[in-house]
Amino acid sequence: MNVAPLVKSRLEPESGLIEALRSLVGDRLSTSAAVREQHGKDESYHKPYSPDAVVFAESTEEVSEIVKLCAKHKVPVIPYGTGTSLEGHVAALEGGICIDVGNMKQIVEVNVEDLDCTVQAGVTRKQLNEYLRDTGLFFPVDPGADASLGGMASTRASGTNAVRYGTMRENVLSLTVVLSDGRIIRTARRSRKSAAGYDLTRLFVGSEGTLGVITEVTVRLYGIPEAMSAAVCSFPTIEDAVNTTILTIQSGIPVARIELLDDVSMDGINKFEKADYPVAHTLFFEFHGTEAGVVEQAKMVQGIASDFGGSDFQWATKTEDRTKLWQARHDVYYAMMALRPGSKGLVTDVCVPVSRLAECITATKADIDASSLIAPIAGHVGDGNFHIAYLVDPDNQAEIDEAAALHDRLVMRALAMDGTCTGEHGVGYGKIDFLNAELGEGVSVMRSIKMALDPDNIMNPGKIVRV
Amino acid sequence: MNVAPLVKSRLEPESGLIEALRSLVGDRLSTSAAVREQHGKDESYHKPYSPDAVVFAESTEEVSEIVKLCAKHKVPVIPYGTGTSLEGHVAALEGGICIDVGNMKQIVEVNVEDLDCTVQAGVTRKQLNEYLRDTGLFFPVDPGADASLGGMASTRASGTNAVRYGTMRENVLSLTVVLSDGRIIRTARRSRKSAAGYDLTRLFVGSEGTLGVITEVTVRLYGIPEAMSAAVCSFPTIEDAVNTTILTIQSGIPVARIELLDDVSMDGINKFEKADYPVAHTLFFEFHGTEAGVVEQAKMVQGIASDFGGSDFQWATKTEDRTKLWQARHDVYYAMMALRPGSKGLVTDVCVPVSRLAECITATKADIDASSLIAPIAGHVGDGNFHIAYLVDPDNQAEIDEAAALHDRLVMRALAMDGTCTGEHGVGYGKIDFLNAELGEGVSVMRSIKMALDPDNIMNPGKIVRV
Repeated sequence: MNVAPLVKSRLEPESGLIEALRSLVGDRLSTSAAVREQHGKDESYHKPYSPDAVVFAESTEEVSEIVKLCAKHKVPVIPYGTGTSLEGHVAALEGGICIDVGNMKQIVEVNVEDLDCTVQAGVTRKQLNEYLRDTGLFFPVDPGADASLGGMASTRASGTNAVRYGTMRENVLSLTVVLSDGRIIRTARRSRKSAAGYDLTRLFVGSEGTLGVITEVTVRLYGIPEAMSAAVCSFPTIEDAVNTTILTIQSGIPVARIELLDDVSMDGINKFEKADYPVAHTLFFEFHGTEAGVVEQAKMVQGIASDFGGSDFQWATKTEDRTKLWQARHDVYYAMMALRPGSKGLVTDVCVPVSRLAECITATKADIDASSLIAPIAGHVGDGNFHIAYLVDPDNQAEIDEAAALHDRLVMRALAMDGTCTGEHGVGYGKIDFLNAELGEGVSVMRSIKMALDPDNIMNPGKIVRV
Repeated sequence: MNVAPLVKSRLEPESGLIEALRSLVGDRLSTSAAVREQHGKDESYHKPYSPDAVVFAESTEEVSEIVKLCAKHKVPVIPYGTGTSLEGHVAALEGGICIDVGNMKQIVEVNVEDLDCTVQAGVTRKQLNEYLRDTGLFFPVDPGADASLGGMASTRASGTNAVRYGTMRENVLSLTVVLSDGRIIRTARRSRKSAAGYDLTRLFVGSEGTLGVITEVTVRLYGIPEAMSAAVCSFPTIEDAVNTTILTIQSGIPVARIELLDDVSMDGINKFEKADYPVAHTLFFEFHGTEAGVVEQAKMVQGIASDFGGSDFQWATKTEDRTKLWQARHDVYYAMMALRPGSKGLVTDVCVPVSRLAECITATKADIDASSLIAPIAGHVGDGNFHIAYLVDPDNQAEIDEAAALHDRLVMRALAMDGTCTGEHGVGYGKIDFLNAELGEGVSVMRSIKMALDPDNIMNPGKIVRV
């Protein structure tokens, strides 16, 4: 855990920038303390930093004009979607102008025949799926929060469906981006494949606003499967649950979701949702396909689970039952917090090769058990990705230090297994030092790219790489 | 079609670079005319340019030392795998040192449990699959040639399996790259997902040696499906064949392969392979899955094909029959050439959104029919990607000009449909002007990245972007 100190805001009060922005957007600019504070913090434990002003943008062209004004004054630009990121991504470490794209909610076009659509950056995943309901298509990427597509592209988000449908890396076809000097580019055409030069789409996906502001996103869509079934299965040990996962993936069974919640998380879910699941290490599955295919997949997985002592599957096949079940899974972060009222969660998300997952989780669980903290585990285990929320009293520095030490050891354990410090949350300013540990000289390549595309370091400075 | 003129080689004969390289690698350096000529040309119609010398490298560390020497003298470095690329990628436009990685054939590690492996850049796709045979796993990306994995990563190659398994973009997990100053980086860890900073892996995939030399490649592997069946189906018109493709994709049927060969290509295949397929517009399918799944998929697709006047499926289920069938498909380039002995093929590979594919192919076919040329069409139509080989007499400038004009119109037609100038061959020096037409200001972002990572423009200069 590292904390970047706030250097003086780069905005010179006499520069006239605020006035110039106001004459551009009128009352869609705010300098009120409440609005600024709300925009400087995300859902993480990281210290928030307020921007000098917040502009509510409405179009790509307007974002371009705003960035041009900021560039002229060399004042930072921080893009903001729904503020649900988890590594301090929206903290205005050096002050500057927050561009809130939350009002850019237009569905620009849906190409049903091509299974794709283009939306403005402020459209959220639930809004999009609501809109698509009558088309028979859906967008699968589902982080816990109802995040904006722009934010999800910026942080390379994923979620429970990634094991089958991929992350934002695989599902973004093209982006419209405003560069640090206000130029507008489209990163790719709409065709499914292309070998036309450097992969600008993938460069901006996961760049966390440090190379430009994403204003439009073209994503892949999928036909809603003919049949979908969800099932819950509990295990005697966490290792049994993880080994069931490993064997399922290795067998090439195309599960749509395979999620682990440990006994502590299940206890939290029972309390938060007033449910009565067994308080045991549990896998949540979902199967997508034809009627026959779903039955076939489920049978194979039940077979594997039984070999590891798993219970009989508890099924949810009706849409409302499946929705309830997955809502419970999506609420796990809030359920975890509820285990210790008043606590804050130091949440993390390492990811390792699947073959090392049992070893990584078992060692981590032992480390937690030997500590004084409650720290539930939940994860997208099919990808080798899992979360821990170290629950700490935010006023107790000893607890925070203990959690930070556990966290450091967890990341180093994952790196030693050829894993990554972040499977899906991103780097922000919270994981900069871990990124160096992970990629070494690779980070200097990132820095060269950053300096080439943003020579004055105005795009979300202090995130991913320090310049 | 554009031709970059050869400026004077940047190698100063008195610089001592050749001698320094020779003292590093001994007799694995060649300056013989035959070796140099062979390394300056690929399988395309583009004019070849010989390097000043060819070095046969054996390790990442050795490539690093070679690049350091070239960097000291500001002499170009051109990486070379199997020389099977198609847009002049290996042409030494400004002279320099060709680094042939063809001897780097080591399988570094296979992680059966994680479905991945790491190989040196010179390992070819057939060598890898041969090696994997006893593991039950396979690597699906299959361009026509038996290309090296390093070259396939460099050009973002794909092939017939991409509709189901993705291209090199989706299947490379990590790369070892030697940068323009000789530094060695690994672009990512081996975990399936990561949100750790800029996506360096995807930046180097498709960068065609212009940002660094790829020396090792970590790729995803897949379990060999329980059941595989291939089928051939002919259609009354090319539009019927394409519409069958479109509806198959839109229905979300997970076909493993869906390939179009027009009547002219089928004629070529019959002659080249001594086969007796109907000389008609034809789709080649392959279905992968469980026994029941394959039957189910095939039934659905046969239903769609019949609605468009398609013939009954001709099946190939035994491994040897499937291999024969797909060998015919992979040989189509050579079969096309055989339609007009002595001709050269001006080969191209646009890709459009699938919904526009029938319109694009029909208009293109009409344009060809109105010309004096033979130009068979074959394509990975499930991705919206198709090839045309305009067969020209290489000594007849009028024919070459006519082919170039047809090609220009084809690319502009694809771009107007929001498609790309290259689905899988890459830019090389053959498609630089088309790349500008496709991405405009995006190309200037590519140029900024190129200049940041290769300030002396020594890495395969004159490809993708002009500096």
